[in-house]
Amino acid sequence: MTEAFDAVDVIVTKRDGGTLTADQIDWVVDAYTRGAVADEQMSSLAMAILQRGMDRTEIAQWTKAMIASGERLDFSDLPMPTADKHSTGGVGDKITLPLAPLVAACGVAVPQLSGRGLGHTGGTLDKLESIPGWRASLSNEEMHEQLRSVGAVICAAGSGLAPADKKLYALRDVTGTVEAIPLIASSIMSKKIAEGTGVLVLDVKVGSGAFMKDLDMARELAATMVDLGTDAGVTTSALLTDMSTPLGRGIGNGLEVTESVEVLAGGGPADVVELTIMLAREMLAGAGITDVDPAEALEDGRAMDTWRRMISAQGGDPDATMPDAPHTEEVLAESDGVITRMDALGVGVAAWRLGAGRARKEDPVQASAGVFLHKTLGETVRKGDVIMTLNTETPERFDRAKAALADACDGEGTVLIEKSGEGRGPIVLDRIGTAT
Amino acid sequence: MTEAFDAVDVIVTKRDGGTLTADQIDWVVDAYTRGAVADEQMSSLAMAILQRGMDRTEIAQWTKAMIASGERLDFSDLPMPTADKHSTGGVGDKITLPLAPLVAACGVAVPQLSGRGLGHTGGTLDKLESIPGWRASLSNEEMHEQLRSVGAVICAAGSGLAPADKKLYALRDVTGTVEAIPLIASSIMSKKIAEGTGVLVLDVKVGSGAFMKDLDMARELAATMVDLGTDAGVTTSALLTDMSTPLGRGIGNGLEVTESVEVLAGGGPADVVELTIMLAREMLAGAGITDVDPAEALEDGRAMDTWRRMISAQGGDPDATMPDAPHTEEVLAESDGVITRMDALGVGVAAWRLGAGRARKEDPVQASAGVFLHKTLGETVRKGDVIMTLNTETPERFDRAKAALADACDGEGTVLIEKSGEGRGPIVLDRIGTAT
Repeated sequence: MTEAFDAVDVIVTKRDGGTLTADQIDWVVDAYTRGAVADEQMSSLAMAILQRGMDRTEIAQWTKAMIASGERLDFSDLPMPTADKHSTGGVGDKITLPLAPLVAACGVAVPQLSGRGLGHTGGTLDKLESIPGWRASLSNEEMHEQLRSVGAVICAAGSGLAPADKKLYALRDVTGTVEAIPLIASSIMSKKIAEGTGVLVLDVKVGSGAFMKDLDMARELAATMVDLGTDAGVTTSALLTDMSTPLGRGIGNGLEVTESVEVLAGGGPADVVELTIMLAREMLAGAGITDVDPAEALEDGRAMDTWRRMISAQGGDPDATMPDAPHTEEVLAESDGVITRMDALGVGVAAWRLGAGRARKEDPVQASAGVFLHKTLGETVRKGDVIMTLNTETPERFDRAKAALADACDGEGTVLIEKSGEGRGPIVLDRIGTAT
Repeated sequence: MTEAFDAVDVIVTKRDGGTLTADQIDWVVDAYTRGAVADEQMSSLAMAILQRGMDRTEIAQWTKAMIASGERLDFSDLPMPTADKHSTGGVGDKITLPLAPLVAACGVAVPQLSGRGLGHTGGTLDKLESIPGWRASLSNEEMHEQLRSVGAVICAAGSGLAPADKKLYALRDVTGTVEAIPLIASSIMSKKIAEGTGVLVLDVKVGSGAFMKDLDMARELAATMVDLGTDAGVTTSALLTDMSTPLGRGIGNGLEVTESVEVLAGGGPADVVELTIMLAREMLAGAGITDVDPAEALEDGRAMDTWRRMISAQGGDPDATMPDAPHTEEVLAESDGVITRMDALGVGVAAWRLGAGRARKEDPVQASAGVFLHKTLGETVRKGDVIMTLNTETPERFDRAKAALADACDGEGTVLIEKSGEGRGPIVLDRIGTAT
């Protein structure tokens, strides 16, 4: 077929700082998806976009084009509103696990399409797959039915949703073009808009363990995504949250399931509980529900009931206990004092290297691998106390995990103990969006 | 094998404005040549280099790495010095044809490795292939022997010379990354340094018909290349020459051979003769020869003798006349006056569309296609005079060629006739280099 544009012309326009037209964007995304624009052309365009940026109109059009590359789900026939949450990824960030059933228990359906982890931040599907029998893949009909009967579903995105994004994301991963805000924003939002949710709350992480190290960059990304969602008719807001230190004490697939169940049982670490409740309030408010207190739904067991039904509906055993790692090592306090630094990147990379994460898409992950923090930020220790336990199924990984702990925080190490110091600062740093 | 670097790290370093180390450059060029760095990674790196630039040390290392990807010729055993010329490409630029035998006739061997045309600027090999029997491909031994016996050779570069450059050039062509000065400079210079010439004179074209439209950009490219040659031990200088109007009257493969033979016979257009002699003086001076006047060698027939031997040595018939085009159309003057604009780009694109050039590497070219300028810049015309003849073997091409003439010079047309005006300005605009 004769193509409407020449890929080189489109690349050169952006390369030289120009604005792409709606027709150029529609064409290049479609042509890339069907293979008429080659990988080496799209990667060069992605680098030009990274260097030159895109304006709001271009990003919105790019997002629309990616949505148009596939199917779009529709939950408007459900008897309740729908809300979803997306996190840009953090260390120990298991919030989706207690959050989805909690929000469902408060009367809002949660159609959460999740991913697997790549790099040092974990993936929600990897975590849930630690539960024996649980399956991530549902058909659209199964997803629909589970939303109706349980109210919450966490599953893998089908291949029909934004296929352009899938292809482009894999390309960006190997070409140094992941860190382009227009492409990050359109990648996330194309999937979330195609997913058909009515309300979307973005948890944009900031700090050493996050993709965005800097608050201003995170704010720009959040504002871009809120605009995209709003333009597409999705009630969208964003919380900017601290990821300089891990969330909770368990970092690793099985460890995070265990901690999530503790939260659902009314216990668990204070920071995980706090963020879960704040995100739940934001999702409920977006759906117009302000008279239900999610803290009560955690305390009275309604959230736990929904969790059990959600896990069972996807073949999982809600009573299963998570496996213990066959090999462990302890990290001890080297002095008396207060822990004034527990660096998220150091802990995240250590857990990843222990086997909790994968280096390449096709690698398996270990259910029991990870890091458990007996002591964390702001807690008092005595010399020789166990600060953390390292868990793995493959003990040859300990050395590289310990090296990651030592190298973190610009070579100054993951853990710092001082005579005195503060605990964790506020988790939520800022909020963007008109939904209240 | 385990790779010394990760391609993404190298891309990200340049993407963020950093400086690549010598080891990174050596690795990435070598790994790309053997396929361990993928096309989509190299194109993203090329776009980052285009946006962020490279410093003198990086460009020199990149050039060395491309030379190291293949073989390097050596003519140090010849009894005379060697000199070569490289033009960045212009319209009607047939200078290599008379220049190589002229310089050889003055006692300096010319080992000229040339290319084919792509786009609106012609290729030297395409022009010479208009001569029946002439062959472009010589072995290194044949090239060596012809330099010894005739003193001049114009042939295709063998596949063993800078293979990294060949692969990278083809990639840049389809990814919008041709226009990166570090990559242009290292591409040209890696081939010329590997070619083994002792002296190199660069003819950097400036103006509408050239790759560089702007004198400052051309000066930057010229200075970068002169530095690279000098650093590699090649006596290098550059002339910046005007390419706002075509060189001479014949534009097209056979037409340019005919005009070159006229120059070698002591005639020909004044601008072609002038530039040929200036470049010859520059090459001879670089080789330390200042007591031989190339103008005399043109007049007394020595250059023509060398031309005839050079063509014969490669199987060509020096007495052959160039074919006439089976289809012609004339462009007439629309008023009385002086031609104050003869736009190089308009004429170049018209000749290209008539069949003198190719759109894709694998396309054939026509020997007789092109444009002949009966009248050019600064010449007086009367309404109805023939300004140019369009030549082609495929008459369906006339319409697109005439459209190119009408569209040139920002839509104002290729030819402008005014009541009065100046002729051609100086051909040589500037000179860069220490060689004298």
